[in-house]
Amino acid sequence: MRKMYEVLIVGGGIIGHSIAYSLSKRGISVLVLEKGQINEKSSSAAAGMLAVQAEMKKGGPLFELGRKSRNMFPALQAELKERTNIDIQLIQHGMLTVARTKEEKETIQGMIPFQKAAGEEVSWLSPDEVVEVEPSITRNTFGGMYAAKDGQVEAPKLSKAFAKAAYSLGTHVKEYTEVINLITDKGKCVGVETESERIYSDKVILTTGAWTKRLLQTTDFPLHVYPVKGECLSVTTKEPLLEKTVFTDGCYIVPKSSGRYIIGATMIPNTFDERVSVSGVSSLLDQAIALIPKLKNAHWEKVWSGIRPQTTDGKPYIGNHPSLKGLFVASGHYRNGILLSPITGEIMADIIEGKNIDQNVEALSLQRQLKEASGVEPTY
Amino acid sequence: MRKMYEVLIVGGGIIGHSIAYSLSKRGISVLVLEKGQINEKSSSAAAGMLAVQAEMKKGGPLFELGRKSRNMFPALQAELKERTNIDIQLIQHGMLTVARTKEEKETIQGMIPFQKAAGEEVSWLSPDEVVEVEPSITRNTFGGMYAAKDGQVEAPKLSKAFAKAAYSLGTHVKEYTEVINLITDKGKCVGVETESERIYSDKVILTTGAWTKRLLQTTDFPLHVYPVKGECLSVTTKEPLLEKTVFTDGCYIVPKSSGRYIIGATMIPNTFDERVSVSGVSSLLDQAIALIPKLKNAHWEKVWSGIRPQTTDGKPYIGNHPSLKGLFVASGHYRNGILLSPITGEIMADIIEGKNIDQNVEALSLQRQLKEASGVEPTY
Amino acid sequence: MRKMYEVLIVGGGIIGHSIAYSLSKRGISVLVLEKGQINEKSSSAAAGMLAVQAEMKKGGPLFELGRKSRNMFPALQAELKERTNIDIQLIQHGMLTVARTKEEKETIQGMIPFQKAAGEEVSWLSPDEVVEVEPSITRNTFGGMYAAKDGQVEAPKLSKAFAKAAYSLGTHVKEYTEVINLITDKGKCVGVETESERIYSDKVILTTGAWTKRLLQTTDFPLHVYPVKGECLSVTTKEPLLEKTVFTDGCYIVPKSSGRYIIGATMIPNTFDERVSVSGVSSLLDQAIALIPKLKNAHWEKVWSGIRPQTTDGKPYIGNHPSLKGLFVASGHYRNGILLSPITGEIMADIIEGKNIDQNVEALSLQRQLKEASGVEPTY
Amino acid sequence: MRKMYEVLIVGGGIIGHSIAYSLSKRGISVLVLEKGQINEKSSSAAAGMLAVQAEMKKGGPLFELGRKSRNMFPALQAELKERTNIDIQLIQHGMLTVARTKEEKETIQGMIPFQKAAGEEVSWLSPDEVVEVEPSITRNTFGGMYAAKDGQVEAPKLSKAFAKAAYSLGTHVKEYTEVINLITDKGKCVGVETESERIYSDKVILTTGAWTKRLLQTTDFPLHVYPVKGECLSVTTKEPLLEKTVFTDGCYIVPKSSGRYIIGATMIPNTFDERVSVSGVSSLLDQAIALIPKLKNAHWEKVWSGIRPQTTDGKPYIGNHPSLKGLFVASGHYRNGILLSPITGEIMADIIEGKNIDQNVEALSLQRQLKEASGVEPTY
Repeated sequence: MRKMYEVLIVGGGIIGHSIAYSLSKRGISVLVLEKGQINEKSSSAAAGMLAVQAEMKKGGPLFELGRKSRNMFPALQAELKERTNIDIQLIQHGMLTVARTKEEKETIQGMIPFQKAAGEEVSWLSPDEVVEVEPSITRNTFGGMYAAKDGQVEAPKLSKAFAKAAYSLGTHVKEYTEVINLITDKGKCVGVETESERIYSDKVILTTGAWTKRLLQTTDFPLHVYPVKGECLSVTTKEPLLEKTVFTDGCYIVPKSSGRYIIGATMIPNTFDERVSVSGVSSLLDQAIALIPKLKNAHWEKVWSGIRPQTTDGKPYIGNHPSLKGLFVASGHYRNGILLSPITGEIMADIIEGKNIDQNVEALSLQRQLKEASGVEPTY
Repeated sequence: MRKMYEVLIVGGGIIGHSIAYSLSKRGISVLVLEKGQINEKSSSAAAGMLAVQAEMKKGGPLFELGRKSRNMFPALQAELKERTNIDIQLIQHGMLTVARTKEEKETIQGMIPFQKAAGEEVSWLSPDEVVEVEPSITRNTFGGMYAAKDGQVEAPKLSKAFAKAAYSLGTHVKEYTEVINLITDKGKCVGVETESERIYSDKVILTTGAWTKRLLQTTDFPLHVYPVKGECLSVTTKEPLLEKTVFTDGCYIVPKSSGRYIIGATMIPNTFDERVSVSGVSSLLDQAIALIPKLKNAHWEKVWSGIRPQTTDGKPYIGNHPSLKGLFVASGHYRNGILLSPITGEIMADIIEGKNIDQNVEALSLQRQLKEASGVEPTY
Repeated sequence: MRKMYEVLIVGGGIIGHSIAYSLSKRGISVLVLEKGQINEKSSSAAAGMLAVQAEMKKGGPLFELGRKSRNMFPALQAELKERTNIDIQLIQHGMLTVARTKEEKETIQGMIPFQKAAGEEVSWLSPDEVVEVEPSITRNTFGGMYAAKDGQVEAPKLSKAFAKAAYSLGTHVKEYTEVINLITDKGKCVGVETESERIYSDKVILTTGAWTKRLLQTTDFPLHVYPVKGECLSVTTKEPLLEKTVFTDGCYIVPKSSGRYIIGATMIPNTFDERVSVSGVSSLLDQAIALIPKLKNAHWEKVWSGIRPQTTDGKPYIGNHPSLKGLFVASGHYRNGILLSPITGEIMADIIEGKNIDQNVEALSLQRQLKEASGVEPTY
Repeated sequence: MRKMYEVLIVGGGIIGHSIAYSLSKRGISVLVLEKGQINEKSSSAAAGMLAVQAEMKKGGPLFELGRKSRNMFPALQAELKERTNIDIQLIQHGMLTVARTKEEKETIQGMIPFQKAAGEEVSWLSPDEVVEVEPSITRNTFGGMYAAKDGQVEAPKLSKAFAKAAYSLGTHVKEYTEVINLITDKGKCVGVETESERIYSDKVILTTGAWTKRLLQTTDFPLHVYPVKGECLSVTTKEPLLEKTVFTDGCYIVPKSSGRYIIGATMIPNTFDERVSVSGVSSLLDQAIALIPKLKNAHWEKVWSGIRPQTTDGKPYIGNHPSLKGLFVASGHYRNGILLSPITGEIMADIIEGKNIDQNVEALSLQRQLKEASGVEPTY
């Protein structure tokens, strides 16, 4: 029962590699096991928004961690460029959350106070001001919230950079290696079993995204992590359309480099089917064209989807398994995987090293599921 | 000035190869010159409808030739399968031309008499009858015309089969060989010049589709053949949606094998830009979903376009050049290239052999452009 | 515990669909569960050889079943065309197994007697005769065996046709649905568990190819089915090169329609990694060019691979599970999946219906693994 | 005869856009006309080597311009990143030109003196030193020349960055717009004719690469610019293989980011056929594996080709047309298009502005063709 690595990470996506990167910076040896190719699932499907304000509708632990993680990006960009020569293309031109109805206006305006209280630079723009800031947006809005600090990165490049940086620090990886079972011994997880071998280690971290349920079901504490498909499409245009990311309840438009725009994303729960639906394309197009009529003149590029892991209370699970010692989970990041990837790496590395974790992280623990079941209200 | 081939065909699309096939069956030696790869432009972009009734709004020579060409397909299918082992997948389940407005109803009903007079099996269906025949169609129509004999083929396979059949009979082809000039001698076309050589022959046929203008401009009789982009998309679904092709003024839906549906086609004149526009996709989707609501549940496949050659009076040019002896043209087939390909091959082979041609073919002659200019009304 | 289907088939590849087709022809209700998309793994990666003589080095049950299955293809082609309008493109121009060394010559000649005894039309050709039959083959061979009855089909089309035919007869399918556990009750398999539901049925058939081990490991009778990657490449050429399939020990060349040639296949055991190796491409190219020097002039098309299921004794497992009632397996077809697909469907349908099975089928039973373990020599 | 632009550039590849960039920095208005999509031909097919030492076998004007252009890259990288946010990924880890035979050793060693004389850092390495510097290279070499300053960029990114920078400075572009004729008036080129319009300007620059011959043939001074196809392939590997570019007479290996290696390039003259030949792939693989045996373990990625413009004396043509005033040419860069792109932009902008040009540039003038014809020896 030879243990070659201090930590096994099951799942070679952005969360797995961010953790591998944090651990290997601390001198801990890591093996990443990936059932297909690394970063080929939702890690590369994301539009790359760093949308603390847009995605999080109330304050609380997740909002605090989101802000903290977003603020890590400028230093992270420099660090990853230095280590890997990959430019993650961080852009911080802000984000416009646009109201298309009176109801949306009220909801969005309701988000401003707690953000200001937290020190975020957010402001409300009238319909005219919205058009002044982004002239391609339709005049027919109810205004919008401008969040100056939100931004975006190139998600596939960030995923690749985390992986390359971790590998350069000694992390190993095995692709096309599916973990089919956890190996337990006296109430402790001591390794994993693949189709062809048994690999032992004192610590196993599951970063298996929407595919987390299968491995956990054999433990006495299964988590409800379920898949939500997000469909996207992209278009290109020579004429510049937008500088800032534009966000609404059912559709966002992210301006990428060289005149490329990503339009996303549907939310279709409980399916692993990666095919894009006609209704999804149709709905995204209708909404995007209504917001930015000039999009009609753009050229079609392509469609794709990602299967994102969602949880019952909308917060990821990051922590140790309540009953199986040596097993850890970081999953359920849903639409915040890119945003939260840097801080998830650091949090999990702290947990692995046994450091004290703060109250916000506590709120993401797996144990909260027990409290939920017993009727205690979760804190966002 | 060695002449190795009796006929040079400039343009390796479906029209060029259909002519090559007809000529080589008659023992005439042919060289096809193609500037890119064969069959890569609109010949392979077509949805493959054989829509005599739907596409031709009045009787006349083009309608007669269309019917004749359509009726050649059953024998052609057997012949090409025998010669090439390629199945062109002829399906003759009929076509439904659906009226979405009162105006469309009147237009379509106006097309019935001349078709019946010509012996076509066409009938008018009430909105309820339309749904009876194709239950996936919306109840909100003004009825439709059912043409029992119309059908479809797999356009890329038909294009490939014509080419393979011609080659098996001795036709030669040079790909990636652009003709940059016609060689003339004493008012006669005696060959062509490519980037690298001069090739001589007594007869040169231009089957250059939307790219016909450039070579003709140096003659004293340029034709107005102009490009019209047609954009298409395809979707797939397990649940069978349609058996017959459904046609409207701005959108058609062609059921292909294995649950694949082609939705086409926009008409964007005067562009060679093959990129698909967002407005095109959006418009096709809106119309198709309005007609067949269940299309929403289908899976997205892809988008593409074809650059189709159109003429001023909507009829192709098939005939000899009015002033440059030895030069022939078969171009301008617009949306009828697949339908008219078999008969175009036969007509041009007759012309090359100096056979008498009938009145209908006369109406497609290049000379008609002179008459048009002089105010004589063209006959469709 | 509602049972909606008489039979559940886990695995939507060619074997699963062939069985579904046979069962549904007999009026038995079937649900196919596929973890990704149907037919996307080795079923569509195969070159489609029907190579009884080339692949089976000695007589015995597998050879007999191979012959029987091959002889089913002409009728199957007509039947599937009728039911699905898909042409599986059966070609029976024979196969040449070429000897490149004296040792290969001896091995191949040693295969002739048992084949002749079985009534196969096989003959030995001298090096000159080889070139006479296929003039593109190098003169530098030690001759070859010609098997007149062997042939080929278009593997992706056959896979699609089995599926479409089964569906048209009432078989249902769920894609992107991974089975994560068998449900057992009192020593009986009574259904399967997916990520999202439990599905009950009295009969469960595993047609999971190289991915069979995981589900069986929880039973007390795991089978050793292991993956062997086969890498292929394809080229195209206008000039016809071959009519018959050419086979050697490390490389075969299969002429497909329209001037396309498939060159395969490497055998790399114990990997699920679908990426193609540089060494694989290099080795296939070297061998193929040595055999058919004119291949050098062909155009490159693409490379791909398939993960094939192999067993310890080289024979597939087709039969009931020795200890878990209600569970059946059809896996381990290795390089004979296309060839054996028709007969596997019929055999498994017989087993499900409780019909007597013959001695040849007996030899493929799962029970033989016990005998092997106890030292009894397996019969090929 | 309205002239909207001071300069028309025919050809939207890297040379056209580099010139457009230089001109627009100087406040000159430019329209780029591209027959297909910008940068889709050899500009994006190149491996991106900046190989002054490896590609230029003797001193002289081309060598001097090559050095000068290469030395422009560090500043250019910063400038383009600033203007476009595109990172051209300049790497200057040096280049190893490896001798595989005694003859190659002599040839390469013969190149060292003139380079040292020019101030280049080049040195000769013994076979052992070669392996010390790049341990993956075979021990079976005759040594190699190490050029410390040579490097590489990401060619598609450089092409895109030139275009985006030019557009941001006001350059306009029309894609899918083929120029079918030059418009001349009294011995002067005054514009161009496309399929759909006439565009007038006092200055027209042809940057049409291998497609330059057609437009020039109608002038009284056609240039012999001919196509040479270069075929490439790429592989990926987790294990780092090389840091420096490795170059030999028939094959080079360029290490790109994230474990990707480009292996190039064949030289097949006088074809516009972009398809990759089996012989090309086979020859590149054989040579590359002989040099770097561990390449066998890499994963296959893809193959592609570029059609490069070559001239009789191996030097590009950069200058004004000898007899047709207002017409300029920058073409024939062959394998040095990426390397020479920055300086070509500056040279042509100087010529357009009527600035004095130096002796090295003089040597690339179109007039030299006259001298060649009259027996005067060209200077490299």
